[in-house]
Amino acid sequence: MFNSVGVICKPNDFTSQKTALELGVLLKDLGVNFLQDQEKFESEADLIIVVGGDGTILNTARTYVDFNIPILGVNLGRLGFLADVSVDSMATVVSEILNGEYIKEQRALLSCQVEKNDEVLSQHLAFNEVVIHRNATPRMIEFELYVDDDFVNNQRADGIIITTPTGSTAYALSSGGPIMHPSTNAICLVSISPHTMSHRPFILHGESEVLINLLDCDERATISFDAQSSLSASEGVALRIKRHSNFVHLIHPKGYDYFEIIRSKLHWGQKV
Amino acid sequence: MFNSVGVICKPNDFTSQKTALELGVLLKDLGVNFLQDQEKFESEADLIIVVGGDGTILNTARTYVDFNIPILGVNLGRLGFLADVSVDSMATVVSEILNGEYIKEQRALLSCQVEKNDEVLSQHLAFNEVVIHRNATPRMIEFELYVDDDFVNNQRADGIIITTPTGSTAYALSSGGPIMHPSTNAICLVSISPHTMSHRPFILHGESEVLINLLDCDERATISFDAQSSLSASEGVALRIKRHSNFVHLIHPKGYDYFEIIRSKLHWGQKV
Amino acid sequence: MFNSVGVICKPNDFTSQKTALELGVLLKDLGVNFLQDQEKFESEADLIIVVGGDGTILNTARTYVDFNIPILGVNLGRLGFLADVSVDSMATVVSEILNGEYIKEQRALLSCQVEKNDEVLSQHLAFNEVVIHRNATPRMIEFELYVDDDFVNNQRADGIIITTPTGSTAYALSSGGPIMHPSTNAICLVSISPHTMSHRPFILHGESEVLINLLDCDERATISFDAQSSLSASEGVALRIKRHSNFVHLIHPKGYDYFEIIRSKLHWGQKV
Amino acid sequence: MFNSVGVICKPNDFTSQKTALELGVLLKDLGVNFLQDQEKFESEADLIIVVGGDGTILNTARTYVDFNIPILGVNLGRLGFLADVSVDSMATVVSEILNGEYIKEQRALLSCQVEKNDEVLSQHLAFNEVVIHRNATPRMIEFELYVDDDFVNNQRADGIIITTPTGSTAYALSSGGPIMHPSTNAICLVSISPHTMSHRPFILHGESEVLINLLDCDERATISFDAQSSLSASEGVALRIKRHSNFVHLIHPKGYDYFEIIRSKLHWGQKV
Repeated sequence: MFNSVGVICKPNDFTSQKTALELGVLLKDLGVNFLQDQEKFESEADLIIVVGGDGTILNTARTYVDFNIPILGVNLGRLGFLADVSVDSMATVVSEILNGEYIKEQRALLSCQVEKNDEVLSQHLAFNEVVIHRNATPRMIEFELYVDDDFVNNQRADGIIITTPTGSTAYALSSGGPIMHPSTNAICLVSISPHTMSHRPFILHGESEVLINLLDCDERATISFDAQSSLSASEGVALRIKRHSNFVHLIHPKGYDYFEIIRSKLHWGQKV
Repeated sequence: MFNSVGVICKPNDFTSQKTALELGVLLKDLGVNFLQDQEKFESEADLIIVVGGDGTILNTARTYVDFNIPILGVNLGRLGFLADVSVDSMATVVSEILNGEYIKEQRALLSCQVEKNDEVLSQHLAFNEVVIHRNATPRMIEFELYVDDDFVNNQRADGIIITTPTGSTAYALSSGGPIMHPSTNAICLVSISPHTMSHRPFILHGESEVLINLLDCDERATISFDAQSSLSASEGVALRIKRHSNFVHLIHPKGYDYFEIIRSKLHWGQKV
Repeated sequence: MFNSVGVICKPNDFTSQKTALELGVLLKDLGVNFLQDQEKFESEADLIIVVGGDGTILNTARTYVDFNIPILGVNLGRLGFLADVSVDSMATVVSEILNGEYIKEQRALLSCQVEKNDEVLSQHLAFNEVVIHRNATPRMIEFELYVDDDFVNNQRADGIIITTPTGSTAYALSSGGPIMHPSTNAICLVSISPHTMSHRPFILHGESEVLINLLDCDERATISFDAQSSLSASEGVALRIKRHSNFVHLIHPKGYDYFEIIRSKLHWGQKV
Repeated sequence: MFNSVGVICKPNDFTSQKTALELGVLLKDLGVNFLQDQEKFESEADLIIVVGGDGTILNTARTYVDFNIPILGVNLGRLGFLADVSVDSMATVVSEILNGEYIKEQRALLSCQVEKNDEVLSQHLAFNEVVIHRNATPRMIEFELYVDDDFVNNQRADGIIITTPTGSTAYALSSGGPIMHPSTNAICLVSISPHTMSHRPFILHGESEVLINLLDCDERATISFDAQSSLSASEGVALRIKRHSNFVHLIHPKGYDYFEIIRSKLHWGQKV
């Protein structure tokens, strides 16, 4: 049961704040504790409702994954892949969910370690994907790829995407990656504009450890996480990526249908 | 320990038969029972050595998967993805393997049921892939796709490939599919020349059940298994596919490196 | 000026015939000679109006290209790439066109010769594309490709598409081909599920002569023209293809916008 | 006849300089005027020999295209697409060429104008391609595409490539573009990681004028020419691109075979 619900808005967005306050009134009416102060989430919240879009959920998921608090997403615009409750249905859906009528789904994140000379420089999480990409200079970067300590190949490309199933319908899809059902226990590597024509998206099982050694990368390369935070890297930097030990738990309204969302977003053929 | 070894040749291939006989001499010298009669394999063989190519292994795997006999492949031509022992190294490698020096790997197969009006017409196994394809007439076929009883989409295409990780480097690769590491617990769907441009290879977790209902398919469509056996189907036929309950166990020589094989076959960048 | 207009219906389609008769009344009202008998088209028609869809236009174009009669397409269903006048706007548009308000556009066809042992077996036209494809048997075909007598490569694939710019938005698009503006003076070759991963659509200038020699093709391969007629071929058959000497002249209503059609059909981003 | 030959080296490359001097001796022996001073090329050279690689040829072509001096490329490393004479065969080939035994081929360049508020900011040439690409920030750029003043679409993508046939085997190929025979009179547009899945490489006839209006591009976008020079641009900047009025004339040794080069570089199937 969800007795204490934290609500997170899209930063600097008036509509989001207004909707969050309406949600607060609703929660109080339903006899549930409404938390606005994120400092209390860790200790008190047993559900987080994100009022925003997929981007706000990505950020929330990375922040709270280790506190094991499930997340529900209310979408202010067009329905997203993650934020699947519309503002219009918010009151009804939230009541039902507090009533125990919901679908709970676990999703994998990536844990990413930036290393240099065997020293860990920093650690990051990604819910969608980690991307290594050349900077503004129009020259490919070069890197070595290892999986579970086995050498895979040496690549020259604009970059490479390491994506979760959740991220497979985001940037990876634009770069030619396959769609991975969220329940797949897998990680996918998608090279961006690779020099070698026989590169293809590469699916690894979910427990694989991916290591990328940056070789020549002209000035510098950019490493980004969910396209929301990034850092600059140069030759000698290594990136070690594996599935994060904890999962995010998404709450969906009853009747949630992953395929319906994807069908609608990708203009796929409806039932005839 | 392997005490009784069955040997299978490529059908109607003299070189294969000659090599098999040499292998028989070697096995006897090593004090191991050499079985030629396939009727005895089920009860007596604790290893099958295939002397041929990937195609002969596909067939052997489908035939013996339910008897739980591991398979080793000796390749007569260019090294294959599955038959990874060359004739030149055969004597050494087989000795080592009988000595216990080997790598054992499990691979998934697909179990496929052809149905019509809720009646099962036939059952088939595939190690690489199941393919539904239009016949000679140059008109797309139309079908509905379901996963675990959920409607996914309605497609018009030349066909669709349902592939195991093993099959991901075979026909599916030619049709734009991703490469799946053999250890991935997943099934991949690859549409062939789909009418809708937003179709992409779709990765499902390994326990998914795929159902394809043939709608309009002009004269008929062809359903094939590992491109080695096929049947003709028309509107109203359904195909139910899931991972087979048993796995094939491949035996590889020590030092076996999946990535080296794929690197060499796809001209990927070597270590610099 | 168009004084004598031939009208062609979609075969065996009642709506098409009814619309054609309405069109006939309209033409007579406008003082124009209305021809129904196709035998008179060659000598009398100075415009052909096709009441059907893109498929009926393909057939009409191949039939009348050498008589230099322009073609206008009225579409009974969703607007097509070729048939771009809706039934609703038919009366207005046809009046305007007879008034001289129209856009005339020339489109290339392919001329295709089937040869064996240096003998010409048959000759064909294609407005969209020529396709060589394996038959029902799930085995790739093998063929040699020459351009202007220069050897290009040896391919193993499910088949190959030779497409005009007009055909680039038809079957070739499903098989991964680029979109070619109808005014491009070019021919495009698209391999279907090629075994070699470095094959890509190949653009040739419009005057190139393409020669394809069928090598191994198991039982037989199918050669088809606009997916409307086809023949069976086997090893030793050669296909010689070049742009047809005459062009089809399409008549479009004033305000015709190729990009608007393609934007709408492919869900491309509208002006913001 | 070539009586006065200018020689250009790869900058800061000792091997290239040494080879150029050897070439100078050879030219003098053959009674030909050997020019090293690039200031004299415009008025005196009737052939330029580039000793370097494809990159040095790109630069030379852009510099001398308006002086109508043909270019021959000697390659120091692996044979290039443009520099197709090896150092080993240099003496023989150059003698033959001075003897009149050669193939002359014209290649198109792109002329590119950077505009803002209807003012021309700068003008550039590209032999391979013009690329607009997002900067280091991991956010797509947005732009409008026009062809010959007709609106085509609004795109969000990492960038877009506008390529000549010559450039079709360079960066555009890595990003999924087709191969265009050098003789094709066409320009190809290739979107890089486009958000909309129905974008495909788009082939325009060679006289088309392409206009790209930069809309939202976060911080800035980078516009680059042959990946050798670049500039930074932001919202409001427009790029107007068309085929340059003059062509580059490449000199090839007799027996030059474009398809052989491409076959070898892309591991295509040889004649059997």
